Amino acid sequence: MIQLYHFALSPFCRKVRLTLAEKKMEVVLEPLPYWEAGSEFLRMNPAGKVPVLRMDRLILSDSQAICEYIEETMPEPPLMPRDPEKRAEVRRLVAWFDDKFHAEVTSKLVYERINKKLTRQGYPDGTNVKSGVKAIKFHLDYMGWLLDQRRWLAGPDMTLADFAAAAHLSCLDYSSDVDWNRNAGVRDWYAKIKSRPAFRSILADVVPGFRPAPHYADLDF
Amino acid sequence: MIQLYHFALSPFCRKVRLTLAEKKMEVVLEPLPYWEAGSEFLRMNPAGKVPVLRMDRLILSDSQAICEYIEETMPEPPLMPRDPEKRAEVRRLVAWFDDKFHAEVTSKLVYERINKKLTRQGYPDGTNVKSGVKAIKFHLDYMGWLLDQRRWLAGPDMTLADFAAAAHLSCLDYSSDVDWNRNAGVRDWYAKIKSRPAFRSILADVVPGFRPAPHYADLDF
Repeated sequence: MIQLYHFALSPFCRKVRLTLAEKKMEVVLEPLPYWEAGSEFLRMNPAGKVPVLRMDRLILSDSQAICEYIEETMPEPPLMPRDPEKRAEVRRLVAWFDDKFHAEVTSKLVYERINKKLTRQGYPDGTNVKSGVKAIKFHLDYMGWLLDQRRWLAGPDMTLADFAAAAHLSCLDYSSDVDWNRNAGVRDWYAKIKSRPAFRSILADVVPGFRPAPHYADLDF
Repeated sequence: MIQLYHFALSPFCRKVRLTLAEKKMEVVLEPLPYWEAGSEFLRMNPAGKVPVLRMDRLILSDSQAICEYIEETMPEPPLMPRDPEKRAEVRRLVAWFDDKFHAEVTSKLVYERINKKLTRQGYPDGTNVKSGVKAIKFHLDYMGWLLDQRRWLAGPDMTLADFAAAAHLSCLDYSSDVDWNRNAGVRDWYAKIKSRPAFRSILADVVPGFRPAPHYADLDF
Protein backbone atom coordinates (compact mmCIF):
# COMPACT_ATOMS: atom_id res chain seq x y z
CA MET A 1 0.00 0.00 0.00
CA ILE A 2 1.21 3.50 -0.88
CA GLN A 3 0.36 6.29 1.55
CA LEU A 4 0.90 9.99 0.95
CA TYR A 5 0.88 12.29 3.96
CA HIS A 6 -0.29 15.59 2.59
CA PHE A 7 -2.11 18.88 3.03
CA ALA A 8 -4.82 19.59 0.44
CA LEU A 9 -3.64 23.11 -0.49
CA SER A 10 0.10 22.36 -0.57
CA PRO A 11 1.40 22.83 -4.14
CA PHE A 12 4.26 20.43 -3.34
CA CYS A 13 1.82 17.68 -2.33
CA ARG A 14 -0.31 18.39 -5.38
CA LYS A 15 2.67 17.96 -7.69
CA VAL A 16 3.29 14.52 -6.18
CA ARG A 17 -0.42 13.60 -6.31
CA LEU A 18 -0.58 14.51 -10.00
CA THR A 19 2.55 12.48 -10.71
CA LEU A 20 1.24 9.40 -8.85
CA ALA A 21 -2.14 9.66 -10.56
CA GLU A 22 -0.65 10.11 -14.03
CA LYS A 23 1.39 6.93 -13.46
CA LYS A 24 -1.81 5.21 -12.34
CA MET A 25 -0.36 4.38 -8.92
CA GLU A 26 -3.03 3.89 -6.30
CA VAL A 27 -2.39 5.88 -3.19
CA VAL A 28 -4.13 6.38 0.13
CA LEU A 29 -4.13 10.09 0.97
CA GLU A 30 -3.45 10.76 4.65
CA PRO A 31 -4.31 14.37 5.47
CA LEU A 32 -1.68 15.81 7.77
CA PRO A 33 -2.05 19.29 9.23
CA TYR A 34 1.70 19.97 8.97
CA TRP A 35 1.53 22.70 11.61
CA GLU A 36 0.49 20.09 14.16
CA ALA A 37 3.12 17.53 13.10
CA GLY A 38 3.99 15.40 16.10
CA SER A 39 7.03 13.32 16.92
CA GLU A 40 5.79 10.30 14.93
CA PHE A 41 5.64 12.40 11.78
CA LEU A 42 9.02 14.01 12.54
CA ARG A 43 10.56 10.55 12.69
CA MET A 44 9.39 10.03 9.09
CA ASN A 45 10.55 13.46 7.99
CA PRO A 46 12.74 15.46 10.38
CA ALA A 47 12.17 18.50 8.12
CA GLY A 48 8.58 18.46 9.42
CA LYS A 49 7.10 19.03 5.99
CA VAL A 50 4.59 17.36 3.71
CA PRO A 51 4.55 15.52 1.34
CA VAL A 52 5.87 12.26 2.76
CA LEU A 53 5.44 9.11 0.69
CA ARG A 54 5.32 5.74 2.45
CA MET A 55 5.61 2.46 0.54
CA ASP A 56 5.89 -0.35 3.08
CA ARG A 57 9.22 0.22 4.83
CA LEU A 58 10.35 2.90 2.38
CA ILE A 59 9.71 6.49 3.46
CA LEU A 60 10.51 9.33 1.10
CA SER A 61 10.32 13.07 1.58
CA ASP A 62 10.93 16.26 -0.40
CA SER A 63 8.51 16.61 -3.29
CA GLN A 64 11.10 16.69 -6.05
CA ALA A 65 13.04 13.72 -4.64
CA ILE A 66 9.72 11.81 -4.58
CA CYS A 67 8.80 12.77 -8.16
CA GLU A 68 12.24 11.83 -9.51
CA TYR A 69 12.02 8.51 -7.63
CA ILE A 70 8.61 7.77 -9.16
CA GLU A 71 9.91 8.70 -12.61
CA GLU A 72 12.95 6.42 -12.20
CA THR A 73 11.00 3.43 -10.91
CA MET A 74 7.77 3.85 -12.92
CA PRO A 75 8.89 5.26 -16.25
CA GLU A 76 5.52 4.93 -18.02
CA PRO A 77 4.04 7.29 -19.07
CA PRO A 78 7.20 9.43 -19.06
CA LEU A 79 7.05 12.81 -17.32
CA MET A 80 10.64 13.70 -18.21
CA PRO A 81 12.31 13.69 -21.64
CA ARG A 82 15.36 11.45 -22.17
CA ASP A 83 17.78 14.05 -23.45
CA PRO A 84 19.87 15.59 -20.60
CA GLU A 85 19.52 19.11 -22.01
CA LYS A 86 15.74 18.80 -22.13
CA ARG A 87 15.68 17.25 -18.65
CA ALA A 88 17.60 20.30 -17.41
CA GLU A 89 14.88 22.53 -18.86
CA VAL A 90 12.18 20.51 -17.04
CA ARG A 91 14.11 20.79 -13.77
CA ARG A 92 14.76 24.51 -14.28
CA LEU A 93 11.03 25.11 -14.64
CA VAL A 94 10.09 22.87 -11.70
CA ALA A 95 12.51 24.95 -9.60
CA TRP A 96 11.06 28.14 -11.12
CA PHE A 97 7.63 27.27 -9.75
CA ASP A 98 8.62 25.56 -6.50
CA ASP A 99 11.17 28.22 -5.62
CA LYS A 100 10.58 31.58 -7.35
CA PHE A 101 6.84 31.37 -8.03
CA HIS A 102 6.30 29.92 -4.56
CA ALA A 103 8.21 32.74 -2.87
CA GLU A 104 6.74 35.55 -4.98
CA VAL A 105 3.16 34.37 -5.49
CA THR A 106 1.88 31.27 -3.64
CA SER A 107 3.31 32.21 -0.26
CA LYS A 108 2.07 35.80 -0.68
CA LEU A 109 -1.51 34.87 -1.60
CA VAL A 110 -2.59 31.34 -0.60
CA TYR A 111 -0.50 31.31 2.58
CA GLU A 112 -1.60 34.80 3.60
CA ARG A 113 -5.27 34.18 2.89
CA ILE A 114 -5.66 30.55 4.01
CA ASN A 115 -2.66 28.92 5.77
CA LYS A 116 -2.20 31.88 8.12
CA LYS A 117 -5.75 31.56 9.38
CA LEU A 118 -5.57 27.77 9.64
CA THR A 119 -2.37 27.99 11.67
CA ARG A 120 -3.73 30.87 13.80
CA GLN A 121 -1.00 33.27 12.77
CA GLY A 122 -3.31 36.21 12.37
CA TYR A 123 -4.69 38.10 9.39
CA PRO A 124 -3.37 38.46 5.83
CA ASP A 125 -0.62 41.06 5.51
CA GLY A 126 -1.80 43.61 2.95
CA THR A 127 1.70 44.35 1.67
CA ASN A 128 2.33 40.68 0.95
CA VAL A 129 -1.03 40.22 -0.78
CA LYS A 130 -0.42 43.30 -2.92
CA SER A 131 3.01 42.06 -3.94
CA GLY A 132 1.60 38.59 -4.80
CA VAL A 133 -1.19 40.13 -6.90
CA LYS A 134 1.42 42.11 -8.82
CA ALA A 135 3.90 39.22 -9.22
CA ILE A 136 1.40 36.67 -10.56
CA LYS A 137 0.90 38.90 -13.63
CA PHE A 138 4.58 38.69 -14.55
CA HIS A 139 4.53 34.92 -14.05
CA LEU A 140 1.39 34.41 -16.17
CA ASP A 141 3.03 36.49 -18.90
CA TYR A 142 6.20 34.40 -18.71
CA MET A 143 4.17 31.19 -18.95
CA GLY A 144 2.28 32.67 -21.89
CA TRP A 145 5.57 33.50 -23.59
CA LEU A 146 6.79 29.91 -23.12
CA LEU A 147 3.47 28.51 -24.38
CA ASP A 148 3.64 30.68 -27.49
CA GLN A 149 6.63 28.59 -28.54
CA ARG A 150 5.86 25.21 -27.00
CA ARG A 151 2.87 22.91 -26.67
CA TRP A 152 3.65 22.31 -22.99
CA LEU A 153 5.78 24.43 -20.64
CA ALA A 154 9.09 22.60 -21.15
CA GLY A 155 8.63 21.39 -24.73
CA PRO A 156 6.40 19.28 -26.98
CA ASP A 157 5.35 16.86 -24.22
CA MET A 158 3.71 17.18 -20.83
CA THR A 159 6.29 16.92 -18.03
CA LEU A 160 6.82 17.44 -14.31
CA ALA A 161 7.21 21.16 -15.12
CA ASP A 162 3.53 21.31 -16.11
CA PHE A 163 2.53 19.50 -12.93
CA ALA A 164 4.62 21.82 -10.76
CA ALA A 165 3.04 24.87 -12.41
CA ALA A 166 -0.49 23.43 -12.31
CA ALA A 167 -0.05 22.48 -8.65
CA HIS A 168 0.65 26.11 -7.72
CA LEU A 169 -1.97 27.61 -10.03
CA SER A 170 -4.66 25.23 -8.78
CA CYS A 171 -4.04 26.36 -5.19
CA LEU A 172 -4.23 29.98 -6.32
CA ASP A 173 -7.38 29.20 -8.27
CA TYR A 174 -8.92 27.81 -5.08
CA SER A 175 -8.37 31.21 -3.43
CA SER A 176 -9.68 33.07 -6.55
CA ASP A 177 -6.26 34.57 -7.28
CA VAL A 178 -5.87 33.70 -10.96
CA ASP A 179 -7.12 36.02 -13.69
CA TRP A 180 -7.74 33.49 -16.46
CA ASN A 181 -8.48 36.30 -18.91
CA ARG A 182 -4.94 37.60 -18.78
CA ASN A 183 -3.44 35.11 -21.22
CA ALA A 184 -5.38 32.85 -23.58
CA GLY A 185 -2.41 30.47 -24.00
CA VAL A 186 -2.15 29.89 -20.26
CA ARG A 187 -5.91 29.40 -20.00
CA ASP A 188 -5.90 26.79 -22.79
CA TRP A 189 -2.93 25.03 -21.18
CA TYR A 190 -4.68 24.91 -17.79
CA ALA A 191 -7.93 23.67 -19.41
CA LYS A 192 -5.98 20.79 -20.98
CA ILE A 193 -4.27 19.79 -17.76
CA LYS A 194 -7.38 20.32 -15.62
CA SER A 195 -9.37 17.86 -17.73
CA ARG A 196 -6.93 15.00 -17.16
CA PRO A 197 -8.14 12.16 -14.92
CA ALA A 198 -5.08 12.80 -12.71
CA PHE A 199 -6.55 16.18 -11.76
CA ARG A 200 -9.88 14.87 -10.44
CA SER A 201 -8.89 14.38 -6.83
CA ILE A 202 -7.46 17.91 -6.70
CA LEU A 203 -10.68 19.43 -8.01
CA ALA A 204 -12.57 17.61 -5.25
CA ASP A 205 -10.38 19.06 -2.45
CA VAL A 206 -12.13 21.07 0.22
CA VAL A 207 -10.46 22.96 3.03
CA PRO A 208 -13.04 23.42 5.80
CA GLY A 209 -13.82 27.09 6.37
CA PHE A 210 -12.61 28.14 2.93
CA ARG A 211 -14.92 27.84 -0.04
CA PRO A 212 -13.15 27.43 -3.41
CA ALA A 213 -13.74 29.91 -6.22
CA PRO A 214 -17.09 29.09 -7.95
CA HIS A 215 -15.34 27.95 -11.17
CA TYR A 216 -12.65 25.96 -9.28
CA ALA A 217 -13.83 22.48 -10.32
CA ASP A 218 -15.45 23.62 -13.57
CA LEU A 219 -13.68 22.21 -16.64
CA ASP A 220 -15.23 24.97 -18.74
CA PHE A 221 -14.04 27.95 -16.67
CA MET B 1 34.66 26.80 -23.23
CA ILE B 2 32.53 26.46 -20.12
CA GLN B 3 31.61 29.65 -18.26
CA LEU B 4 29.94 29.85 -14.89
CA TYR B 5 28.31 33.13 -13.91
CA HIS B 6 28.50 33.18 -10.15
CA PHE B 7 28.77 35.08 -6.89
CA ALA B 8 31.60 33.94 -4.60
CA LEU B 9 29.51 33.57 -1.45
CA SER B 10 26.48 31.92 -3.05
CA PRO B 11 26.10 28.37 -1.69
CA PHE B 12 24.21 27.41 -4.87
CA CYS B 13 27.13 28.53 -7.05
CA ARG B 14 29.59 26.77 -4.76
CA LYS B 15 27.69 23.48 -5.10
CA VAL B 16 28.01 23.74 -8.88
CA ARG B 17 31.68 24.77 -8.68
CA LEU B 18 32.47 21.75 -6.48
CA THR B 19 30.62 19.45 -8.87
CA LEU B 20 32.42 20.81 -11.95
CA ALA B 21 35.82 20.59 -10.21
CA GLU B 22 35.23 17.06 -8.95
CA LYS B 23 34.44 16.01 -12.53
CA LYS B 24 37.62 17.77 -13.63
CA MET B 25 35.73 20.08 -15.98
CA GLU B 26 37.60 23.29 -16.66
CA VAL B 27 35.49 26.33 -16.21
CA VAL B 28 35.96 30.07 -16.49
CA LEU B 29 34.38 31.76 -13.49
CA GLU B 30 32.54 34.96 -14.39
CA PRO B 31 31.76 36.92 -11.23
CA LEU B 32 28.27 38.37 -11.49
CA PRO B 33 26.95 40.70 -8.80
CA TYR B 34 23.42 39.23 -9.10
CA TRP B 35 21.87 42.36 -7.55
CA GLU B 36 23.08 44.37 -10.55
CA ALA B 37 21.97 41.78 -13.13
CA GLY B 38 21.18 43.61 -16.35
CA SER B 39 19.03 42.71 -19.32
CA GLU B 40 21.76 40.63 -20.96
CA PHE B 41 21.94 38.38 -17.91
CA LEU B 42 18.15 38.22 -17.62
CA ARG B 43 18.02 36.91 -21.17
CA MET B 44 20.21 33.99 -20.02
CA ASN B 45 18.18 33.45 -16.85
CA PRO B 46 14.87 35.27 -16.53
CA ALA B 47 14.87 34.24 -12.85
CA GLY B 48 17.72 36.73 -12.41
CA LYS B 49 19.75 34.35 -10.26
CA VAL B 50 23.19 32.82 -10.29
CA PRO B 51 24.54 30.24 -11.05
CA VAL B 52 24.19 30.20 -14.82
CA LEU B 53 26.28 27.73 -16.79
CA ARG B 54 27.16 28.50 -20.39
CA MET B 55 28.63 25.85 -22.70
CA ASP B 56 28.72 27.29 -26.21
CA ARG B 57 25.08 27.76 -27.22
CA LEU B 58 23.75 25.84 -24.23
CA ILE B 59 22.71 27.96 -21.26
CA LEU B 60 21.58 26.26 -18.06
CA SER B 61 20.24 27.71 -14.84
CA ASP B 62 19.04 26.50 -11.43
CA SER B 63 21.83 24.92 -9.42
CA GLN B 64 20.20 21.51 -9.04
CA ALA B 65 19.22 21.31 -12.72
CA ILE B 66 22.85 22.11 -13.56
CA CYS B 67 24.27 19.49 -11.18
CA GLU B 68 21.91 16.77 -12.42
CA TYR B 69 22.83 17.70 -16.02
CA ILE B 70 26.55 17.40 -15.23
CA GLU B 71 25.95 14.07 -13.50
CA GLU B 72 23.98 12.72 -16.48
CA THR B 73 26.49 13.85 -19.10
CA MET B 74 29.75 13.35 -17.15
CA PRO B 75 29.09 10.29 -14.99
CA GLU B 76 32.70 9.89 -13.74
CA PRO B 77 33.42 10.10 -10.87
CA PRO B 78 29.81 9.47 -9.80
CA LEU B 79 28.23 11.95 -7.37
CA MET B 80 24.94 10.05 -7.20
CA PRO B 81 24.35 6.37 -6.42
CA ARG B 82 22.61 4.21 -9.01
CA ASP B 83 19.83 2.81 -6.86
CA PRO B 84 16.66 4.98 -7.07
CA GLU B 85 16.04 4.74 -3.31
CA LYS B 86 19.55 5.97 -2.55
CA ARG B 87 19.25 8.70 -5.17
CA ALA B 88 16.09 9.86 -3.41
CA GLU B 89 18.09 10.13 -0.17
CA VAL B 90 20.75 12.25 -1.92
CA ARG B 91 18.08 14.53 -3.37
CA ARG B 92 16.24 14.76 -0.03
CA LEU B 93 19.44 15.99 1.61
CA VAL B 94 20.32 18.39 -1.20
CA ALA B 95 16.85 19.90 -0.74
CA TRP B 96 17.37 19.88 3.05
CA PHE B 97 20.37 22.16 2.68
CA ASP B 98 19.27 24.26 -0.29
CA ASP B 99 15.78 24.78 1.09
CA LYS B 100 15.52 24.30 4.87
CA PHE B 101 19.11 25.03 5.93
CA HIS B 102 19.22 27.97 3.52
CA ALA B 103 16.02 29.48 4.93
CA GLU B 104 16.86 28.85 8.58
CA VAL B 105 20.62 29.41 8.65
CA THR B 106 22.42 30.77 5.55
CA SER B 107 19.90 33.50 4.79
CA LYS B 108 19.80 34.49 8.47
CA LEU B 109 23.57 34.76 8.91
CA VAL B 110 25.56 35.16 5.69
CA TYR B 111 22.87 37.21 3.96
CA GLU B 112 22.30 39.43 6.99
CA ARG B 113 25.97 40.01 7.66
CA ILE B 114 27.36 40.22 4.11
CA ASN B 115 24.85 40.27 1.24
CA LYS B 116 22.72 42.95 2.89
CA LYS B 117 25.67 45.32 3.09
CA LEU B 118 26.84 44.50 -0.44
CA THR B 119 23.37 45.19 -1.83
CA ARG B 120 22.96 48.33 0.34
CA GLN B 121 19.90 47.02 2.12
CA GLY B 122 20.97 48.25 5.52
CA TYR B 123 22.28 46.58 8.66
CA PRO B 124 21.92 43.01 9.91
CA ASP B 125 18.60 42.37 11.63
CA GLY B 126 19.39 41.15 15.16
CA THR B 127 16.33 38.90 15.36
CA ASN B 128 17.32 37.10 12.17
CA VAL B 129 20.94 36.67 13.28
CA LYS B 130 19.81 35.31 16.65
CA SER B 131 17.48 32.81 15.00
CA GLY B 132 20.25 31.70 12.60
CA VAL B 133 22.73 31.23 15.47
CA LYS B 134 20.17 29.05 17.23
CA ALA B 135 19.15 27.04 14.14
CA ILE B 136 22.67 26.13 13.02
CA LYS B 137 23.10 24.13 16.26
CA PHE B 138 20.14 21.91 15.43
CA HIS B 139 21.45 21.42 11.89
CA LEU B 140 24.99 20.54 13.01
CA ASP B 141 23.49 18.03 15.45
CA TYR B 142 21.38 16.51 12.68
CA MET B 143 24.45 16.23 10.43
CA GLY B 144 26.37 14.66 13.32
CA TRP B 145 23.56 12.13 13.81
CA LEU B 146 23.68 11.19 10.10
CA LEU B 147 27.48 10.94 10.18
CA ASP B 148 27.32 8.63 13.21
CA GLN B 149 25.72 6.08 10.92
CA ARG B 150 27.25 6.90 7.56
CA ARG B 151 30.68 7.71 6.17
CA TRP B 152 29.23 10.56 4.07
CA LEU B 153 25.96 12.39 4.56
CA ALA B 154 23.82 10.26 2.26
CA GLY B 155 25.62 6.91 2.60
CA PRO B 156 28.98 5.20 2.09
CA ASP B 157 30.08 7.44 -0.80
CA MET B 158 30.52 11.16 -1.29
CA THR B 159 27.58 12.64 -3.23
CA LEU B 160 25.94 15.90 -4.24
CA ALA B 161 24.44 15.98 -0.74
CA ASP B 162 27.92 16.49 0.74
CA PHE B 163 28.64 19.23 -1.78
CA ALA B 164 25.34 21.00 -1.03
CA ALA B 165 26.08 20.87 2.71
CA ALA B 166 29.72 21.91 2.32
CA ALA B 167 28.71 24.78 0.03
CA HIS B 168 26.50 26.26 2.75
CA LEU B 169 28.88 25.56 5.62
CA SER B 170 31.84 27.07 3.76
CA CYS B 171 29.90 30.33 3.28
CA LEU B 172 29.05 30.32 7.00
CA ASP B 173 32.65 29.54 7.83
CA TYR B 174 33.69 32.60 5.84
CA SER B 175 31.53 34.75 8.13
CA SER B 176 32.80 32.90 11.26
CA ASP B 177 29.41 31.38 11.98
CA VAL B 178 30.36 27.70 12.42
CA ASP B 179 31.33 26.33 15.81
CA TRP B 180 33.55 23.43 14.72
CA ASN B 181 33.81 22.23 18.31
CA ARG B 182 30.14 21.38 18.49
CA ASN B 183 30.38 18.00 16.76
CA ALA B 184 33.57 16.03 16.09
CA GLY B 185 31.91 13.94 13.35
CA VAL B 186 30.91 17.05 11.41
CA ARG B 187 34.37 18.54 11.86
CA ASP B 188 36.05 15.38 10.52
CA TRP B 189 33.64 15.29 7.60
CA TYR B 190 34.36 18.94 6.73
CA ALA B 191 38.12 18.38 7.05
CA LYS B 192 37.86 15.51 4.54
CA ILE B 193 35.86 17.50 2.02
CA LYS B 194 37.87 20.70 2.55
CA SER B 195 41.11 18.93 1.63
CA ARG B 196 39.85 17.81 -1.78
CA PRO B 197 41.38 19.55 -4.80
CA ALA B 198 37.85 20.55 -5.85
CA PHE B 199 37.65 22.80 -2.78
CA ARG B 200 40.74 24.89 -3.56
CA SER B 201 39.09 27.63 -5.57
CA ILE B 202 36.49 28.10 -2.83
CA LEU B 203 39.14 28.51 -0.15
CA ALA B 204 40.76 31.22 -2.28
CA ASP B 205 37.55 33.27 -2.56
CA VAL B 206 37.65 36.81 -1.26
CA VAL B 207 34.73 39.20 -1.05
CA PRO B 208 36.10 42.75 -0.97
CA GLY B 209 35.31 44.48 2.32
CA PHE B 210 34.75 41.21 4.19
CA ARG B 211 37.70 39.34 5.60
CA PRO B 212 37.16 35.58 5.98
CA ALA B 213 37.52 33.90 9.39
CA PRO B 214 41.26 33.37 10.17
CA HIS B 215 40.97 29.57 9.84
CA TYR B 216 38.82 29.78 6.68
CA ALA B 217 41.42 28.39 4.25
CA ASP B 218 43.30 26.36 6.86
CA LEU B 219 43.06 22.60 6.25
CA ASP B 220 43.97 21.99 9.88
CA PHE B 221 41.28 24.16 11.51
